[in-house]
Amino acid sequence: MKTMPTIDQNLTEAPVATSTTSLASRAENDPISRTGGRPRVVVVGAGFGGLHVAAKLARADVDVLVLDRNNYHGFWPLLYQVATAGLDPASIAYPARAILRKYPNTQFLMAEVSGVDFERKLVLSGDKALPYDYLVLAAGSANNYFGDTALAAHTFGMKDLDEAEQLRNQLLRAFERAVVEPDPVRRAALLTLVIIGGGPTGVELSGAFAELIRHVLRKDYPMLDIAQARVLLVEASDRILASFPEQLQRSARKRLEKMGVEIKLGTAVAAVDGDTVTFKDGTQINSSTVVWAAGVRAAELVDALGLAVGRSARVKITPKLNLPDRPEVFVIGDMAYLEGYKGGQAYPMVAQVAMQMGKQAARNILALIEGRPLGTFHYLDKGQMATIGRRAAVFDAFGIRLSGFFAWIGWLFIHIIYLIGFRNRLVVLTNWAYNYFTYDRAVRLITGAERE
Amino acid sequence: MKTMPTIDQNLTEAPVATSTTSLASRAENDPISRTGGRPRVVVVGAGFGGLHVAAKLARADVDVLVLDRNNYHGFWPLLYQVATAGLDPASIAYPARAILRKYPNTQFLMAEVSGVDFERKLVLSGDKALPYDYLVLAAGSANNYFGDTALAAHTFGMKDLDEAEQLRNQLLRAFERAVVEPDPVRRAALLTLVIIGGGPTGVELSGAFAELIRHVLRKDYPMLDIAQARVLLVEASDRILASFPEQLQRSARKRLEKMGVEIKLGTAVAAVDGDTVTFKDGTQINSSTVVWAAGVRAAELVDALGLAVGRSARVKITPKLNLPDRPEVFVIGDMAYLEGYKGGQAYPMVAQVAMQMGKQAARNILALIEGRPLGTFHYLDKGQMATIGRRAAVFDAFGIRLSGFFAWIGWLFIHIIYLIGFRNRLVVLTNWAYNYFTYDRAVRLITGAERE
Repeated sequence: MKTMPTIDQNLTEAPVATSTTSLASRAENDPISRTGGRPRVVVVGAGFGGLHVAAKLARADVDVLVLDRNNYHGFWPLLYQVATAGLDPASIAYPARAILRKYPNTQFLMAEVSGVDFERKLVLSGDKALPYDYLVLAAGSANNYFGDTALAAHTFGMKDLDEAEQLRNQLLRAFERAVVEPDPVRRAALLTLVIIGGGPTGVELSGAFAELIRHVLRKDYPMLDIAQARVLLVEASDRILASFPEQLQRSARKRLEKMGVEIKLGTAVAAVDGDTVTFKDGTQINSSTVVWAAGVRAAELVDALGLAVGRSARVKITPKLNLPDRPEVFVIGDMAYLEGYKGGQAYPMVAQVAMQMGKQAARNILALIEGRPLGTFHYLDKGQMATIGRRAAVFDAFGIRLSGFFAWIGWLFIHIIYLIGFRNRLVVLTNWAYNYFTYDRAVRLITGAERE
Repeated sequence: MKTMPTIDQNLTEAPVATSTTSLASRAENDPISRTGGRPRVVVVGAGFGGLHVAAKLARADVDVLVLDRNNYHGFWPLLYQVATAGLDPASIAYPARAILRKYPNTQFLMAEVSGVDFERKLVLSGDKALPYDYLVLAAGSANNYFGDTALAAHTFGMKDLDEAEQLRNQLLRAFERAVVEPDPVRRAALLTLVIIGGGPTGVELSGAFAELIRHVLRKDYPMLDIAQARVLLVEASDRILASFPEQLQRSARKRLEKMGVEIKLGTAVAAVDGDTVTFKDGTQINSSTVVWAAGVRAAELVDALGLAVGRSARVKITPKLNLPDRPEVFVIGDMAYLEGYKGGQAYPMVAQVAMQMGKQAARNILALIEGRPLGTFHYLDKGQMATIGRRAAVFDAFGIRLSGFFAWIGWLFIHIIYLIGFRNRLVVLTNWAYNYFTYDRAVRLITGAERE
């Protein structure tokens, strides 16, 4: 065994060898899984699900290792505010080590997981193989383009900080280009934003973009005819916010239209090529900025696992949240496919499901260790909400259905409560107060290497 | 003449044509420079210099067009805090349009200037040519590697937001890699930060990094032997902060050493290759993160202008701040070479010089328009300061020489006053209060596309 004096022995890693014999012998040399130490729980993903597993196991007699490809936890419910220049990325991201260091049995490692050797109980990441006794897969979700590579290439996603910043840069750059674009058709395309998908992400984005244009860009670009700037929200079904009660769908729609968002229902997209969106009915619209918010799927890691999947590439699990033939492997949150929601639907890909599954998976790991029977996942639906704009939201939670100002106050309150970290709360509140009272959006910066 | 109904006629641009005849005729068609309108002043750069030109001309009978390759003004005195995870990039950047829109005669355009046709009075940017009557070149400075491409390739610069974020990402990523690095030599290299250049940037960076390691990374990485983490400040001359009085140099040095920074004076760098720094005396140090803060030069735009330059590629100007043979062209700030500072030295590349030159250039443009004699540049030296760490700075301004706590209070106060924008002040203050009371640095995020 190698000695690594300055490295905590709990976090030993063995390089992946080419022959399986060597791989097995290295795993056998691992001090944690073989030498009578505490069982090790590896958690893949530091999202809402993964963090709740770690929190629940914090006082248990296990070693927990959390892996994530980023070194931070992203508070994705506020991601649309990064895309619309209302918040800077750091406000909605919190260092994973800062969260996890308060649990003495938990370690963190920034690592992109490329696969799992279920037979030998190894998590694979680049040239490393990390042994586990219990595994929780909680790597979240990714954009689903349904195999359409043109869609993937010519639309902007809204799944992580990079994508949100890219979208912000793109919209601001499009306005800069419009200033010097002599061709009126191309100028109109630069000023047109098409958002595909009428779920909460599409609704929140379109409302926030409409406000950005109306309150900020109108003043920044007095030389542009701001009436040319359009925000379109395109939805294939006949309603936006399909998961909300009908009365809230209607009030959200009315409010968005009042703010200048053009809502196109029953309109499916046939093709996107970077300049033009073509709909299935043959109509077209010129737009240089198209956002894809109409499809999500389980994280791409699923494709490397060879497991049975349900809709959206989500891994099929038992009601105990583990794999049918591998009880030590749990899959939770957006990655997991389990029916039982509202009669028999799959549980939705939302933070509340991931958090509650995280707690139940942790409980079931302890049950396995102690030889007790596993508990079944029961979901307590706390409701849902979406913000539409300044002083407007829809709120369907704790048995209360609201729209308008009080829904917005409820939304603010709950998001500030859930936001991790004292400093992030303060900075977000400062920004929100500034945005509210000045109608400004101070983060309208074009960052990164791509420049005109 | 093309009609462009939705574009302000003041901001017409003509594509660069291949033949100069055509170019000239397009410039002649420009409604501003040829049709009896107000004279147009084009300002290249929205830094401290450029913004002061625009501010001074705000009420004058001219049209001002400010160009910058970014859409924001960067408050570079706080850039080192972005590199050391203390502030997010948005806190020290302010949208150029938000600053300039309060001047009714001023427009902004995000554009990278590639050259100037002095004969035809055109500023060239990509395929555009923007006519001017008066030109102010204020594009600032860039890293100076003195032609050493290995140095440029293997060190991190500290000249803009991208570079500061890259340096932050690099240091945090190095610590993540050290966790899983079994080789003790390579691990030590990952934990060693070498900063070349003992000026204010090098001093501020090394102090802030020493605090980041001591207060934050030590807790984030309990499995690493933090005694292995080293911060070296390397300076070729025999002193740090050469422009400060000797007593302040000494106290800065003492303070840095107390914080754990290793200062190597009289040590010139011979070569950097990404793993190792080799000094001219033949000694070597293994380091995966080397910062180049030992050389600046005028912005690379200078190389395309064909003008006479002094040291650091700065353009030689008259004491009226314009070119000897082209009185309508002014060069100010870091881009300009003018002797007269403290007897006969060149004015230093600092914000105060740029700001005061900006005001004088604006005055002289108005003098040219009105046929009055031009004024000579007189510099009022308000002094200098540098922060070293928590409650420690050196302050040599307004006739006061201080080090320690009161210097630090003075530094804080002046930087908050000069920081543009109400929201940025609030957010920076919130972050500083948080950093101060918690000893934390919340922006320790690894962002961007490059991932392990």
